[in-house]
Amino acid sequence: MSTDRIESLSVQTFLDELASAAPTPGGGGAAAVMGAMGAALVAMVCNLTIGKKNYEAVEDEMKAVLAASEDVRARLTAMIEDDKTAFDALMGSYKLPKASDEEKAARSAAIQAGLAGATVVPLDCAKACAEVVRLSARAAAVGNLNVISDAGVGVLAAWAALRSAALNVHINAPQLKDRAFAGAKLAELQALLDECGPLAEQVHDTVKSKLG
Amino acid sequence: MSTDRIESLSVQTFLDELASAAPTPGGGGAAAVMGAMGAALVAMVCNLTIGKKNYEAVEDEMKAVLAASEDVRARLTAMIEDDKTAFDALMGSYKLPKASDEEKAARSAAIQAGLAGATVVPLDCAKACAEVVRLSARAAAVGNLNVISDAGVGVLAAWAALRSAALNVHINAPQLKDRAFAGAKLAELQALLDECGPLAEQVHDTVKSKLG
Repeated sequence: MSTDRIESLSVQTFLDELASAAPTPGGGGAAAVMGAMGAALVAMVCNLTIGKKNYEAVEDEMKAVLAASEDVRARLTAMIEDDKTAFDALMGSYKLPKASDEEKAARSAAIQAGLAGATVVPLDCAKACAEVVRLSARAAAVGNLNVISDAGVGVLAAWAALRSAALNVHINAPQLKDRAFAGAKLAELQALLDECGPLAEQVHDTVKSKLG
Repeated sequence: MSTDRIESLSVQTFLDELASAAPTPGGGGAAAVMGAMGAALVAMVCNLTIGKKNYEAVEDEMKAVLAASEDVRARLTAMIEDDKTAFDALMGSYKLPKASDEEKAARSAAIQAGLAGATVVPLDCAKACAEVVRLSARAAAVGNLNVISDAGVGVLAAWAALRSAALNVHINAPQLKDRAFAGAKLAELQALLDECGPLAEQVHDTVKSKLG
């Protein structure tokens, strides 16, 4: 693994490192990349709708969706690296010494802090992906018909990314000793899944109905 | 758009170009990247299962899945650029002169050839993504439990990529004058969707049941 930030690697090198036995980048980083790809495709639809003939009436709406999708894309791109940081912190905590009672207590506290981070980071990714799903609905509803399939690919990427982030929450949350905290985070996650699953299918079907 | 092959761009630059008003990379290239990410995650699970204690019995199986997933990853990575080539050929055909009857006939033939290419390229992407879905099922069934969530992210990426490629087939196939060819390609696509939708959900559920 190089010391560069992951988003500065080439797509080819990112894929090679994803496939390798190195623990990061893994599914968490892949989820953030997929979410960012979804946001980018929503932005693309906006960029190819703004200023086009016959789309004057939706220009303000598309400008608002563009600004929001570019904002969430920047946050999701940063999360590629956040996932690695959270994973490394958790792995590091397991390697702490545990010879004395003091060391055992410090190690246990570090593991719990690491698990909390490794729960919150993918939950934040899931929240950002839910924003992309909502934005894709607006792009699919009024965006340029010539590129409407890109809104469809955007929602599929964002929904797959949300579910991927959810799997990462589900790895770590069960090991948290603070069950109230874990329960609150799992409830937040479930609300996102319950909202965005039907919405993503609806956006996909809207797009498909406009093709061909 | 730079003249470099898309996979040699950094992840950040790829995302920036995806979001831009440039027509490629767009949803077709994004589908190939997602499929390649799915294949890479299946390979990662294999790489972290082969040679590990308690997984000796599945080592041959994981080596076979690794070889197959790395092969399909290479093909999907090449398809990122194939999508751009097919799109550019189709766009170029629409710009051909149409002053004389001869020019009109040549232009019409070029458009039909472009549409055939822009149907076959995403269908090939969908076929490769179906291979990744099938491989993810084997990785999820017997892979190292410590990284089983990565098999789950892999199947979600591959299935989203397959559906994304399908949208791109559905843009172009309806405009083909050779209805027998179009019908055969749409039937092939539908068979992949019918097979892989339930399989992808099953793999996801298998993974989720093994977490936490």
